[in-house]
Amino acid sequence: MKKMIIASTSTVHGSGYLNYLLEELMFFFADTDTILFIPYARPGGISHEEYTEKAKATFLQIGKKVKGIHEFDNPKEALKSAKGIFVGGGNTFVLVNQLYKNNLISTLQDVINNGTPYLGTSAGSNICGLTIHTTNDMPIVYPPSFKTLAMVPFNINPHYLDPDLSSKHMGETRETRIQEFHAFNSPPVIGLREGSWLEVNGDRIILEGELDARIFEYNKAPYEVKTGTDLSGLN
Amino acid sequence: MKKMIIASTSTVHGSGYLNYLLEELMFFFADTDTILFIPYARPGGISHEEYTEKAKATFLQIGKKVKGIHEFDNPKEALKSAKGIFVGGGNTFVLVNQLYKNNLISTLQDVINNGTPYLGTSAGSNICGLTIHTTNDMPIVYPPSFKTLAMVPFNINPHYLDPDLSSKHMGETRETRIQEFHAFNSPPVIGLREGSWLEVNGDRIILEGELDARIFEYNKAPYEVKTGTDLSGLN
Repeated sequence: MKKMIIASTSTVHGSGYLNYLLEELMFFFADTDTILFIPYARPGGISHEEYTEKAKATFLQIGKKVKGIHEFDNPKEALKSAKGIFVGGGNTFVLVNQLYKNNLISTLQDVINNGTPYLGTSAGSNICGLTIHTTNDMPIVYPPSFKTLAMVPFNINPHYLDPDLSSKHMGETRETRIQEFHAFNSPPVIGLREGSWLEVNGDRIILEGELDARIFEYNKAPYEVKTGTDLSGLN
Repeated sequence: MKKMIIASTSTVHGSGYLNYLLEELMFFFADTDTILFIPYARPGGISHEEYTEKAKATFLQIGKKVKGIHEFDNPKEALKSAKGIFVGGGNTFVLVNQLYKNNLISTLQDVINNGTPYLGTSAGSNICGLTIHTTNDMPIVYPPSFKTLAMVPFNINPHYLDPDLSSKHMGETRETRIQEFHAFNSPPVIGLREGSWLEVNGDRIILEGELDARIFEYNKAPYEVKTGTDLSGLN
């Protein structure tokens, strides 16, 4: 049975890395003292080692050990024997490219479906959707596909940002970009504001955190849903 | 001899479509009364027809006719016989995908190299660089390649946006995103602010408009260049 936390961001403004989620994570990862970290998204281009150090320091606060997947000779076996997985944020294209390179997509799907607790933040959340067609990231590498884990039956837009009505910038708003997505694709998209997350338990998908989320469905006006809403019917 | 205007945006805040460039375009397209418009980027998902109507209305103000490339049975031949080309903005992935689908990349390179005046705005400017690895757009379709026209020896970031120091948003700034690009790629990137454009004449590439531009080179601190700077040495 799936058990996932799919978070908009690792960090909310004015607080430390994963701070707003730590208490939640203590319960979420209660059955394991070691978490397998996938640092492939390399935020700011930092190395797998540097990124893993950051995750280690944070999980130490709740008494958990962290091992980076790059420390294993066989990343597929590492995933299969993991008792908890965390995929951190950074660049979604870099993350997806590395997952394909190491042939890990189907293994990840299997272990999540079999109940290994999975935490994703930002890019690590993006890949839980059907595709990365709704990432905000710059396409700095060309992955072999935009298809991802499809652990939820829709697409995710993390770091969802409301239009800034005072802005003089002429680039597209986030809402316009997602509406352009729907000119070419039909799956729903959930705009997850920073501080929100989805909690997946089997087939239930609950919006958690203090904020509402914005839902974009094909050929429908976008609408807001309250925290606590079950989104499993969104497909 | 190449003759190009590569503009950050079609529209600056508070002014009409292409308004800030119209006088310039009167001279730029002086030798033709008809411009071939490539509407493939479909801003907001609008159709090729709708988008072409918008371009038509604007060029009428300077006495030019516009024909959409989709109106021709053979888009390759349309490009070859064009006396002026305009590639409008919208979604860069959609634009590049359609150019590859219609097998137009090398034809575009040929006609530009042979001197057909080329105007690009936003997505239409992005494709003048080496690749679309530095577009801001959402990857709503999966093109067969990120490689583009390479009419300038660097990459372009249109709608370049300075970091908002008062923001509480935790998503990456534009500068961070471009620096992440340089963790995986070495070509320089020019951040073109809205209202700036590059004027290409043969091998000369001059920054035009009122604003400075921001240059990102591999393994170097980003720096500003003044309008009027020749950027042909940037590679």
